[in-house]
Amino acid sequence: MKILVLGGDGYLGWPTSLHLAERGHDVAIVDSFHRRLWDHELGADSLIPILTLQDRVALWERLGKRPIRTFVGDITDWEFVGHVFTSFRPESIVHYAEHRSAPFSMLSRRHAVVTQVNNVVGTLNILFAMRDLAPESHLVKLGTMGEYGTPNIDIEEGFIEIHHNGRSDVLPYPKRASSFYHLSKVHDSNNIEFVCRAWGIRSTDLNQGVVYGVHTEETSLDTGLSTRFDYDDVWGTALNRFCVEAAIDHPITVYGKGGQTRGFLDIRDTLQCVELAILNPPAEGEYRVFNQFTEQFSVQDLAEKVRDGAEKIGWNPIIENIANPRVEMEEHYYNARHTKLMDLGLQPHYLSETLIDGLLETVKAHGGRVNKRLLYPRHNWKQGLLEDVEPGDRL
Amino acid sequence: MKILVLGGDGYLGWPTSLHLAERGHDVAIVDSFHRRLWDHELGADSLIPILTLQDRVALWERLGKRPIRTFVGDITDWEFVGHVFTSFRPESIVHYAEHRSAPFSMLSRRHAVVTQVNNVVGTLNILFAMRDLAPESHLVKLGTMGEYGTPNIDIEEGFIEIHHNGRSDVLPYPKRASSFYHLSKVHDSNNIEFVCRAWGIRSTDLNQGVVYGVHTEETSLDTGLSTRFDYDDVWGTALNRFCVEAAIDHPITVYGKGGQTRGFLDIRDTLQCVELAILNPPAEGEYRVFNQFTEQFSVQDLAEKVRDGAEKIGWNPIIENIANPRVEMEEHYYNARHTKLMDLGLQPHYLSETLIDGLLETVKAHGGRVNKRLLYPRHNWKQGLLEDVEPGDRL
Repeated sequence: MKILVLGGDGYLGWPTSLHLAERGHDVAIVDSFHRRLWDHELGADSLIPILTLQDRVALWERLGKRPIRTFVGDITDWEFVGHVFTSFRPESIVHYAEHRSAPFSMLSRRHAVVTQVNNVVGTLNILFAMRDLAPESHLVKLGTMGEYGTPNIDIEEGFIEIHHNGRSDVLPYPKRASSFYHLSKVHDSNNIEFVCRAWGIRSTDLNQGVVYGVHTEETSLDTGLSTRFDYDDVWGTALNRFCVEAAIDHPITVYGKGGQTRGFLDIRDTLQCVELAILNPPAEGEYRVFNQFTEQFSVQDLAEKVRDGAEKIGWNPIIENIANPRVEMEEHYYNARHTKLMDLGLQPHYLSETLIDGLLETVKAHGGRVNKRLLYPRHNWKQGLLEDVEPGDRL
Repeated sequence: MKILVLGGDGYLGWPTSLHLAERGHDVAIVDSFHRRLWDHELGADSLIPILTLQDRVALWERLGKRPIRTFVGDITDWEFVGHVFTSFRPESIVHYAEHRSAPFSMLSRRHAVVTQVNNVVGTLNILFAMRDLAPESHLVKLGTMGEYGTPNIDIEEGFIEIHHNGRSDVLPYPKRASSFYHLSKVHDSNNIEFVCRAWGIRSTDLNQGVVYGVHTEETSLDTGLSTRFDYDDVWGTALNRFCVEAAIDHPITVYGKGGQTRGFLDIRDTLQCVELAILNPPAEGEYRVFNQFTEQFSVQDLAEKVRDGAEKIGWNPIIENIANPRVEMEEHYYNARHTKLMDLGLQPHYLSETLIDGLLETVKAHGGRVNKRLLYPRHNWKQGLLEDVEPGDRL
């Protein structure tokens, strides 16, 4: 199948592209390298060194693998999107090409606007390209579990049957996101649901949990195929950041009480889920939502798992509950359904001590590259970028 | 009170500004004149001639009224927004400064993107300006009843208590909008709800129905104070357009079966509602939603009311059910709550034969200005701008 991977240079886009190519699909990657640009803005970098996209793809081909085509450009540019669609004619479109950081979106007005405009306009362009240039194609869109917030009732997969005043209807599950980034994904979901109804577009909205891990079957073939690994305050996610902190004998920094509970999944399961969605496309005009995670943990749980794993190999990290930069409940009910991908055949890699051990060792090997300045939040949700960070630390 | 009216040159913004000035408030108008620009793009014009904003405001002052200050610029321009807030220091902000046409947003990719970017970015700029420059102020935001769509259960005012699997929560009412314009208002609502929680902003989201009528107490003082009146396929709303059609002996064009039911209100009630929201502000951090309409009608009902009114004064319009350019249900359940504004003291002007008679006479007086080319839709929701409109009719 001809599969276009938007954002194919990123943490998940790159291993997804390899995974799909390895399974015999014709893969083309689209990327604008904004993620690499923001590393410069934020003074951050991937913990694990990564090659350029061009070198990665060349290496993959030298290893005798199915070639991957690349398109370098920005999907908010309609002329570029038109070129990609007419020259590649995708059958499936995997859409990772979005700003993906809640903290980034909260740094300032400019960051909020850039995040929402990029995500909304990029996705609108893809939808119009599908309508006019690839009407049979299937959009596999990466959304986030964060779109739902933390309601006091069970979270369903996209829709909920509501009984009210003696009548009932199945309606979109109410969303209550808590950053301009998460809100941008809600905006996208609403736009996509509409065009499925209005134009007959096929779409799968993957409301993904927090991804952890770094190695996949294909990236492990050669160090040059490694994907990026972020640990800083803006791009790093909980488990990955905790492992880095443990590896350099820095306190494991939990935001607030740590009772914040979320869905999590192994990076290898992201690849499986995307492939399952592609291989089992929705009907014409169908908008479906899969909650894409395998286990729920609280942030404190995760920190303790990392600490325990670290202690087993002789390290002694402490857990530090620091002021929470975010606006979120730190103790709450959380129970989210996630059966649709299991029904399609997902075989989860559950979080085990082995995974944490491996991650700790990987991270340790790159410990010299850790910039400690990036471990504590340089922002909060109320005022954005903090005024009291040191001048050299300013974004 | 110091009240900033964003979009104060428009159909509702202008009479709202006069109404508030007449009641002793210090009013400043912000407008970019995009609405007047789009008249050129679409070859359309207000049926009733209108003065420039500068002449309108000067006339108002010559009549001995409280002066109204004006700021000409675009709220998507942050530098301009900062200037307005620091120089006027608003206590209330009435936000009409949005693209407001569902058909406009569906004409093409470009129109969809312009609508969503303008509305989302303009509103984000206002929210950041409130946070940083006017933290005590109150945002009165014009949303639309169209955000809800047409669910098979009663529509509540913004929030709904959901009972599910033995638990319950009060959550944002599920939205299912049916144009890129309506979706832009959903995006705004979600962004605003978040900043009320995160930053303590005060906001009232007025989910307004379809407005009809043209005269208000203040605009009736002098023909130079008239507000615009749209009847074309892109900007005209049901009742107003039907009256124009009846007045020039053109068929009254109902889209599809006409069973589409919506909330409606008199233009004078819009002014009352906005004033009631301003005089009864929400608490710090409160996001509240009022459904702003007074009666529900189906489109067919309205067409028949206009036909009956016209017959009474000796005209003989027929009703023509034409192909529906929109994607919407033409027969559906519809029951929307609208008690919060009544509880604050709204005294509705219900749709009466007198109103229709007066509107028909007003419209008749300007019948020579009607451009019949603009009465039939030049677009549909599936493909946008129609290819088979005559070349001279192209946008």
